[in-house]
Amino acid sequence: MKVSRRALLAGAAGAVALGKTAVAQSSAPTPDPTKVRGKPSRALGQRAPMEKPQRQVRGGASSGTPHQDLYGTITPADLHFERHHAGVPEIDPKSYTLLIHGMVDRPTIFTLADLKRFPSVSRVHFLECSGNFGGRAGSAEITPQQLAGLTSTSEWTGVALATLFREVGVHPKATWFLAEGSDAAMLTRSIPVTKAFDDALIAYGQNGEAIRPEQGYPARLFLPGWEGNANVKWLRRIELSDRPFMTREETSKYTDPMADGTARMFSFLMDARSLITYPAYPVTLTRGWIEINGIAWSGSGKIQRVDVSTDGGATWTAAKLQEPVLSKAHTRFRHLWNWTGGEAVIMSRAVDESGYVQPTRETLIASRGVGTVGYHLNPVTGWRIKADGAVVFKQEQWG
Amino acid sequence: MKVSRRALLAGAAGAVALGKTAVAQSSAPTPDPTKVRGKPSRALGQRAPMEKPQRQVRGGASSGTPHQDLYGTITPADLHFERHHAGVPEIDPKSYTLLIHGMVDRPTIFTLADLKRFPSVSRVHFLECSGNFGGRAGSAEITPQQLAGLTSTSEWTGVALATLFREVGVHPKATWFLAEGSDAAMLTRSIPVTKAFDDALIAYGQNGEAIRPEQGYPARLFLPGWEGNANVKWLRRIELSDRPFMTREETSKYTDPMADGTARMFSFLMDARSLITYPAYPVTLTRGWIEINGIAWSGSGKIQRVDVSTDGGATWTAAKLQEPVLSKAHTRFRHLWNWTGGEAVIMSRAVDESGYVQPTRETLIASRGVGTVGYHLNPVTGWRIKADGAVVFKQEQWG
Repeated sequence: MKVSRRALLAGAAGAVALGKTAVAQSSAPTPDPTKVRGKPSRALGQRAPMEKPQRQVRGGASSGTPHQDLYGTITPADLHFERHHAGVPEIDPKSYTLLIHGMVDRPTIFTLADLKRFPSVSRVHFLECSGNFGGRAGSAEITPQQLAGLTSTSEWTGVALATLFREVGVHPKATWFLAEGSDAAMLTRSIPVTKAFDDALIAYGQNGEAIRPEQGYPARLFLPGWEGNANVKWLRRIELSDRPFMTREETSKYTDPMADGTARMFSFLMDARSLITYPAYPVTLTRGWIEINGIAWSGSGKIQRVDVSTDGGATWTAAKLQEPVLSKAHTRFRHLWNWTGGEAVIMSRAVDESGYVQPTRETLIASRGVGTVGYHLNPVTGWRIKADGAVVFKQEQWG
Repeated sequence: MKVSRRALLAGAAGAVALGKTAVAQSSAPTPDPTKVRGKPSRALGQRAPMEKPQRQVRGGASSGTPHQDLYGTITPADLHFERHHAGVPEIDPKSYTLLIHGMVDRPTIFTLADLKRFPSVSRVHFLECSGNFGGRAGSAEITPQQLAGLTSTSEWTGVALATLFREVGVHPKATWFLAEGSDAAMLTRSIPVTKAFDDALIAYGQNGEAIRPEQGYPARLFLPGWEGNANVKWLRRIELSDRPFMTREETSKYTDPMADGTARMFSFLMDARSLITYPAYPVTLTRGWIEINGIAWSGSGKIQRVDVSTDGGATWTAAKLQEPVLSKAHTRFRHLWNWTGGEAVIMSRAVDESGYVQPTRETLIASRGVGTVGYHLNPVTGWRIKADGAVVFKQEQWG
């Protein structure tokens, strides 16, 4: 006799005697795997045929991580979000060079081998596009991937930019540096030198292997906790200066119009945010205990707490955080909840170690206005559970 | 003018004035990437064409991780080592079930959906085959992959086995459980119940995604720190008992002949070990400062210290450990060394938080003899650097 756990939980069956052959008797659509020799070992593994996680491609210039399909905190490298302004260039690692010049004592060109010879460091960090908010589209039928797919977490390996800056002798009066990519957009951003001496990396490794092409192969700037576009990929040049360079990307783009009519510049920091990844659209729930879970992250450091509400924000309970909680990295949170049927709205709210609390939509609009630019939007969001168990995005009015 | 960092370090050039066009003037074999639109975004990323890390396939039944190609601590899922006794089965996740029965109050069959509905946990752990020692082959031309490729580290996600054992009501007198796989080998092992209540998982996630087929898709037993074969893959049945089951795998195999003529059974624990992954065969060094680095791990908990010797074991220095140091996980160690030329032997020695010190070959042989069975061999190993910079394995006599 075969009995499902659900039947047991519902009390429909008591203790049931089960023979060892119970499994073999089940009507599997595939041949009994105990009777067929399996596949031999291979040089490279592949996903199981039934597992097909995919990035959501948006117009050729970006693709988002399928958070609803993922567990834990690490994003598989082939599912790490991508965003580029002129496509993914092919760079020959043998001819790759990084020039550091400007206000330095010893202008130097580093080959990839040079970069790899320096002392290295590995750190788990999220990376997020500042335009990572799909909650204004007006649709209730959006997935976590559509809502916030432009954030991912990897173990990054590289050389501390501080090491290179000491090597070339950065002048004491140098306060900014230009980072220039070698893609066809030649993306350039101005970065404060203080970030280099804090925690910036020149990264050449991602999740244990060489960095992937769309993440900047063979080497990129990595600025933990700062908006994605400033983490210049396919990095070929760094120029030290005593002022910002006012590049196209930081004048015509990547500024934040504020409610008072001014525009905020150099808003590098990605503030704390959280995202429930289960249950979420397009899941349909069945009654009983479930584990609400998701990811939270902050560019300011560690996640201190994630509050979860199952009554549309009326009351909140601190979720359990998956240890170890790492600085500037996706942190998995979990909260047990008994859905007994009926409509409900579940929400999450992140608090980071600086004390910053993830804002509501209303708070964001009060400071930022309802302008057309959607950078740095990190409001508390939620999922609506319908009486039949269908889960949809809790829509919001943005302007 | 273009100048390499190496030239600068060697003092052959002083401060050099470099124009912004230095990079553009270099003779790259590929077209200038700033002049060509790159590739559009894709649903799944791929490695850069020049990067070809591969597992080393050994006779169809195993493949090893290319440690010499990797950074950090995470092993990409498609490079995680594999070992199986009858190939990799194809299991349909929709018909997958796990039966728990024997000395329990409520024998139960769990579907995959049932397992995923329980509270989940994610942990970074290594997994190692007890036969992970390629140092007796007699060749000096072996890579880290050939020496110790059968260990890998992933972030594993699943349900605590303790949760399931409470669910089915394991009898207080049950002390062992049988774990049975659904591959054609129907691999079975007896595991102490105490391990279930300590830290065992039924894992269905690996590095953020569904577990890979060769690692046990859709669900496996995961016993942190214990020898690979006991972590039964494609797990279909757990039977509780008050004694071990004395299966073929634990009578004819997976015992350790000792020097006194007895055989050690149920030697689950993988003791502390370390492996220098750079420099190693087939690297050829150039003179100057390099970072010796590698991985260390212990089934007993955290790595407390890794000592590195650059003089064949005469003197030792504590290496720097990459934070965070996680329990039962690969830990990257790094040690700066100035190779000034001449022959040298570099070695590493792990110490774990239990105080266990990775043994020498002599110590191992004294306790284990020089029998034909090569399980649980974790001696200190080293790499010989020849006068011309060529790096080879430091060969050892084993019998």
